[in-house]
Formats: sequence, C-alpha cells, structure tokens
Amino acid sequence: MITITSPQNQKIKDVIKLRESKARRQTGLFVLEGAREIDRALASAYVLRSLYVCHDVLSPEARDLSTRIDDRLKLNITSEVFAKLAVREGSDGLVAVLEQKTFDFTSLPNKPDPWLLVLENIEKPGNFGALARSADGAGVDAIVVLDPKADPYNPNALRASVGALFTRPLIITDHETFAAYCAQKKIRILTASPFAEAYHFQADLRGPLAIVLGSEAWGLSPAWSKLENIPVKIPMQGLADSLNVSVAGAVILYEALRQRWTP
Amino acid sequence: MITITSPQNQKIKDVIKLRESKARRQTGLFVLEGAREIDRALASAYVLRSLYVCHDVLSPEARDLSTRIDDRLKLNITSEVFAKLAVREGSDGLVAVLEQKTFDFTSLPNKPDPWLLVLENIEKPGNFGALARSADGAGVDAIVVLDPKADPYNPNALRASVGALFTRPLIITDHETFAAYCAQKKIRILTASPFAEAYHFQADLRGPLAIVLGSEAWGLSPAWSKLENIPVKIPMQGLADSLNVSVAGAVILYEALRQRWTP
Repeated sequence: MITITSPQNQKIKDVIKLRESKARRQTGLFVLEGAREIDRALASAYVLRSLYVCHDVLSPEARDLSTRIDDRLKLNITSEVFAKLAVREGSDGLVAVLEQKTFDFTSLPNKPDPWLLVLENIEKPGNFGALARSADGAGVDAIVVLDPKADPYNPNALRASVGALFTRPLIITDHETFAAYCAQKKIRILTASPFAEAYHFQADLRGPLAIVLGSEAWGLSPAWSKLENIPVKIPMQGLADSLNVSVAGAVILYEALRQRWTP
Repeated sequence: MITITSPQNQKIKDVIKLRESKARRQTGLFVLEGAREIDRALASAYVLRSLYVCHDVLSPEARDLSTRIDDRLKLNITSEVFAKLAVREGSDGLVAVLEQKTFDFTSLPNKPDPWLLVLENIEKPGNFGALARSADGAGVDAIVVLDPKADPYNPNALRASVGALFTRPLIITDHETFAAYCAQKKIRILTASPFAEAYHFQADLRGPLAIVLGSEAWGLSPAWSKLENIPVKIPMQGLADSLNVSVAGAVILYEALRQRWTP
C-alpha cells in the first residue's frame, strides 16, 4: 500500500478542496473525519471512495474500522499529511471521502404515519447538524430541507451531527413538492413560531406529522401563510424570548416522541 | 466624557485581561458584550462597573441602553479600541465590566416546590451557557453548579446563554451542601443517565425537584451512588447513543415544565 508523505500530493489537495461547498457540488463527494462518524455513514450505506489512514495516531476504534475496509480504497498518510487533512481534534487518524446521497419522497417507506422534521433555511451548519442528531435520537422517518442551496455536507454540520446526519433520508426539496407530498399522505404540518397561540405540548403530535423549523434570524418564511399549518410555541418563562433553534427542535421532537411512542 | 483612543490604555488592557479565568477570580469582575446581554444582567441587578461605548458602531438598541447609564460609568472608545475589546460579532458597540454575584441556598425564595437544574462538571462553556438559556426558558428556580472550579463568567458561556445566565440564582457549591439542602427541602433528585431503566417522561417531575446532568465525557460522578436519586434516560431511537448534554438538558427541563405547569 502506498504512503503519501507530501501535503502537496494532488490527492491530498483534492480532499482539502472538498472543504469548499463548490467543490462538493461539482464532485458529489464529501469528507468525513473520525471513526465513529465514518462507521455511521458506512452503516447507512454511504459509498466510500477512499480512506486516508494515519497509523501514527490511529485509535483502537479507528484501527478496527480500517481493517474492515478494502485495501484498494485505503491510502496511508504520514502525520504531517494528516495534520493538513484533519480539521477537528480527535479525528483518530481517519479521513474518508464518500459519495453524497440524494433522496426524494419516493425513497421513503410507505408508512401509515410518517414523521418528518422539516428545516427551512437553517443558517448555521452547527445547528443543522445538532438537529440531525436529535432527529436521529427521536426517530423521525426523514429530514426535509426546504432550501435548494442547502449543503448538508458542510464539515461543521457533519461534526455537530456526530454522524447522525446519515441515519435518516435527507430530502432537499422545495415548498411545492413538500406540500404535494403532505396533501397526498394527509400529513399535518406543525410550525414552530413565537407568535403561536398554543404551546407545543397542547397539540396532538400523533399520526402523520411534519414539524417545521425556520431560520435562526428570520423564523418561518411567508410561504407558510398559504399552506395549512398548526403553529405552536415553546413556553418561555424567563427573560429570554427564544431558545436556540436546535434546542427548540429537540424539545418539540421529544414531545412528539412521548405522544407517539409507547416504550 | 473622555474618549480612549489607544488600545494600549491601561483600562483597556485590564478589560482584555478579564478574558482570563485567573483575572476574573482575582477581581470578582467579568466582561459582557452586547446590548441585549448587558440589559439582562442589569435587569437581574448585576452591578455595572464601567461601560465602554463605541459610537461608530452603536446599534439603536445599544444607544437606548447607553443613554440610561450614569455618565460617570461610561467611557467612549474609538472603533480601533473597540475592535480590540470586542471578541464576538454583533457586539453592537457596547462592552461592560460587571461585578460577579455569588448565591447560596439561603438566597432562594422559600417555595413549597423548588425546582433546580444541577450541573456537575460540565466541561464546555458553550454547553453551560446553552443550559442556562434553557433553564431560563423553562423557569427553574436556580442553577446549581457542583464544581468548585466552575467559572460561569467564561466569555463563551456568557455568549451561549445570550444573557440568560443572569436571570436565575447561580449557586456554586459541593455535593455535601447540596445533599443537605435537598434533604431539608425534601427535594427529589433526578439524574440523567444512559444506564437508567426509566425514560425521562415516565418519571413524576412535579413537586420539589433537582435535575442533575453530568459531564459531556464522563457522565455522572460516583458521588451519586451514595445519594438517593432517580436515574432517567432519554429514548435514543437511532444510531447515535446520546444527545449533546445541552439538548438532553432542555428535553428533560421542558418535560418537567409540561408536568409542573398549567398554561
């Protein structure tokens, strides 16, 4: 197996380039660091293109994962090269290049009571990733992103999700397609809004359901005024007027799980 | 009113020094940026020592706050000096130096059903601040920090809390003092643990209650094995084995609010 010793190697340059959104769009690829994250992507049938392995800093978990990967996909790198490739702390010696996956509503299993988390123009990749982690924990059927420019493979989103971004179908679509799917499946649309009359736990969150969160700064877009939806708010008992969107999302998701699920 | 034009001014150097935990401990002071944050600290009776005002970048909200402050506490600074003082984006032209406040259990109002959020060795200041924001939103009576070395006035904690760190008494104490208070007030102790049998929403969260969260990496300390407590876990329906501690805290706090509160 070859060992790449120079950070100037073209393959290394190509991986670094994938930190940019444009390069990800053009190639359909993305970069992922860390054994746990890579493991979750592979468990969710993401296709591995190459795995860069730095034996000098390999954790036991990373070594274990590395031995399961086809030798033809692996490239050894020196710690000097790894230092260039790895962005975050605790990457435990592995950097993977994977193929992006695209989903649409036809990818979803035909369940009687689908449950969707819908994110409209979430601006901070860290919030996006944190919401994906909570969506995985609560067990939604899919994450729907209403933002054609969304880039779920942003490194900060991947990092905040700790690999949970891969465990649910991620559907990037527009309002019209989403509305048509909801109409067809009789999905009730719940929107989180500080202007709502009802609290989130007063709503019936069982049955076919979409929970919609808007952007950090601007909230929901005007599009929702034309679409039948149930606005709910989270009680704010103190001086602050809102929660962070990723926290608000988790609170509503887990209230929905409480209503929908019997342990 | 004087205008400070040099970043080398001793007053400016002293403020910058307060970014360090040691300087905060020695002086009993801390630095706070942003009109909304400073407003919330003042509303919670924190004592202002000085307010640095940069008129070049003052937002309307910040201007409004500034006019309410005694001139003798205000110092004008140039945008060059402000650039040195302000750490985060969106500080809207105000940097305040405030006195820290210390609370103990005698500071708490004598309520029949006190509700506490207890944080044991939370490592990341950002998580600490986010938990304070959720605690403000859910309306707990106090935040108890079981970590004598805790530094709640860390700039990243203040930032993540968006000023909500000031709205509740913050009691820094040890396990013994906390246990004695719980015994005296008949407070039931709920601990969040992935090893629990019961889910958080299966527990009775009404009445005198303390919700305990442990550190991100290590969870709860062994101290809890000697103290009567009710372990609960949050359902994890996906591949990930846990939520971020600030998200987990918010989910449990809002389930408690749902049970404790009638809108």
